[in-house]
Parts: sequence; structure tokens; C-alpha cells
Amino acid sequence: LVAARAGRSGRRAGDSGTSEAILEAARGQFAEHGYRGATIRAIAAQAQVDPALVHHFYGTKDALFAAAMQLPVVPSEVIATAFESGPPERGLGELVVRTALTLWESDAVKETFLGLVRSAATDEAAAFMLREFVADSILGTLARVAGVTGTRAEVEYRAAMAATQMIGLALTRLVLKLPAVAQASVDELAAAIGPSVERYLVGDIVLPDRFAGIGRG
Amino acid sequence: LVAARAGRSGRRAGDSGTSEAILEAARGQFAEHGYRGATIRAIAAQAQVDPALVHHFYGTKDALFAAAMQLPVVPSEVIATAFESGPPERGLGELVVRTALTLWESDAVKETFLGLVRSAATDEAAAFMLREFVADSILGTLARVAGVTGTRAEVEYRAAMAATQMIGLALTRLVLKLPAVAQASVDELAAAIGPSVERYLVGDIVLPDRFAGIGRG
Repeated sequence: LVAARAGRSGRRAGDSGTSEAILEAARGQFAEHGYRGATIRAIAAQAQVDPALVHHFYGTKDALFAAAMQLPVVPSEVIATAFESGPPERGLGELVVRTALTLWESDAVKETFLGLVRSAATDEAAAFMLREFVADSILGTLARVAGVTGTRAEVEYRAAMAATQMIGLALTRLVLKLPAVAQASVDELAAAIGPSVERYLVGDIVLPDRFAGIGRG
Repeated sequence: LVAARAGRSGRRAGDSGTSEAILEAARGQFAEHGYRGATIRAIAAQAQVDPALVHHFYGTKDALFAAAMQLPVVPSEVIATAFESGPPERGLGELVVRTALTLWESDAVKETFLGLVRSAATDEAAAFMLREFVADSILGTLARVAGVTGTRAEVEYRAAMAATQMIGLALTRLVLKLPAVAQASVDELAAAIGPSVERYLVGDIVLPDRFAGIGRG
């Protein structure tokens, strides 16, 4: 494979099918190795191109995953943009809720969310791939830009608690369309739900005892 | 239809296929009219039995819906049982989270939840039927036994906010299997998430301005 890549990458760099070949290789590698285990190097090898070309076309692994899965946006980029002035002194949770709800107004995002929920509920391999993308790319970025502190296990737990709230908000608003949630405005939901998200990320929550000592001292 | 029912209910009461005929009629009526719009009377008419027989076989509309959808439990009954001593003075939210998490330990419940998520994300008619069942039967019961107060719109809103949290907890734990959520114990999640659920149901949340005056004075 390495030989094939080295021998053919020059020839294929300009092919019109190259970007599609990269996406196809990416889908294969993500499905087989998960989001975490798939590497740009292995994706390039399978697509028989140079890894630099993958970076050139798609940038980061987050962005390549988003392109391969036909996500209409790169979630980590949306989150980073919302927090580009740093975490706000007040209303951190409201900012998270407001950013998500505003994004979900788009029909393309709604459709994509439905498709992802269907896949995750139908196919364990899809759930696996998505789980790592949510944990590493989406929640990892959120924890970083929102200034969540603690040991690695604590930061992951806090971000995961926020995910239980945000994914439920998406499901009840976009899929189940529970009337009180579907009819509420962005402002109303940000005001009601923001404090929960903020508590999970940076507030006073009970952390599991088993984290005590891990990654400390 | 009324004539057919009146004429045949006596003959069919003892048939071995009667209970199945009732379930089939229930599925048809719930799918066509939603949970709210379907009536025991219309279900009985379609099954060509007496309405009293439907009550005799299945009890309440909640229980008939659960049987027709092959739910392994009747959610409203599980909630009512958990709160049979009345809402606790402390830890109301923890009790809700603990009850749900304990129920979800069952493989049958997990499988059912996956099936419902798939249906709701695939089929608008399934989402419609489920939405009304969640709103009326599950959330209506929860609001009542947990002692949620306010106007009808406020009570519905509070219960719906709790649903955004609880449904997201189910999705991240049972479908996406986000590691930090899937690996946490019932006690840990009840301690971290309980306070959010409690705040939504009976605590200090911002209610939409548009509720002001509705159902008051």
C-alpha cells in the first residue's frame, strides 16, 4: 500500500476523482477503526494519495470526518467560533444552548441530525464511529473553549453531562417535536436550560468518587 | 361500524383472537388519530367488541398503548409506583433519574427504546403518536405525582424541560453509549443530573413570558 501510494500519489493529485477517493477512503477507515483510530496517513494510503494532499483538501481530521459524513457544518468549528472571544463571564451555558439551537434552525442540520440518530439506533458500527467523534471532536472542543478544568476524567465527565442535556434537547425539539420544546424560542430555551449546561461544565456537580486521585498530585 | 360492533361484540367476546384484534385495532387508531385522538370506543368499534371488554383486557389507555406498541412496561405505572409515597422532601430529581436508570438496566427496555428512537427518526406518523404518548401519559403522570404546580402551560413546560434531560440521558447511555455516561453508575448519574431535573420540575427556572396571564385569575 505504501509503495502504491508513493508511486501513484503524484499521478492522482490532479485527478478530478481524488477528493471523492479521499472521502471514500475516509468513510472506510472511520467505519473500521472509529474516529479515534483512523489516521490521515491510513486514509491517504487507502486513497493512494499523499497525506499532505488530504490535509490540503480537508484540513483537520474533524473537517475530513464532517465532509465524509456529509455533515453540513464542522461542529467543532461552530463551537470554536461561538467562543472566539473566550468563555463569557456570565451566561456560558446560555451561549452553548443558543449556539446549538441557532445551528439547528437549518433544515440541512435537522435532516443530518435525524440521519445520524437513525444510524446510531440501527447500526452499532455507526454508533461507535459517532460516539468517538462526539467525545473527541465536539465535546473535546467544547470543554477546551469553555474553559472546563479538572483532571482529564473530570473534564470528560463534565462535557458528557452537558451532552446528555444537549442531545436530549435536540431529540425532543427536532425528532420527537414535543410541543412545549418545539414551540419555544431560542431565548426561552437558552434561559431555562442554559443554567443546567453551565452547572455541568463549570459549576457545582457531584463528580464520581472513583475519579479521586486519578491524574492528581 | 356501531351496528357491526353492537351485533358482534357478544359473539367475539370469548374468541381467542379477541385480544389480538383489539391490539391491532389500537395500533391502527393510534397511528391514525395519535395517542390523544384515539378513543377506547373507536378501538372497540374497529375490533368489533364492546368497549367494556377493551377495559377488561387492558385497563387504561396508557396500558393499551403500551401493549399495542409492545412496550415491556407501562411508563406511567412505573412512575406512579416510584412516587407512591408522594414526592420526597429531598432528592425529587434524583428519584426521577434513579427510577429511569434502573428501568433501563433491562435489555427489553433498552431494545424497545432503540426501536422507538429508530421509528421516531424515520417515520413522522410514529413520531406523532409517540409525542402525544410522552406528553400526555409519561410527562402528565410525572408532573402529577411529582407535585409540579402552576398553570397548565407552565406544568407542561416544566415537564417538557425535564424530558429534554431524561431523553438525552437515555440516548447518550443506551444508543450513543458515550463512555463517561455508559460507564457511570446509577448513583453517580442520579447525583449529577438529579438537580437539573428537580430544577425543571419544581425549582427556579425562567418560564416563557408568553405564559403570563394564561390560565391565571
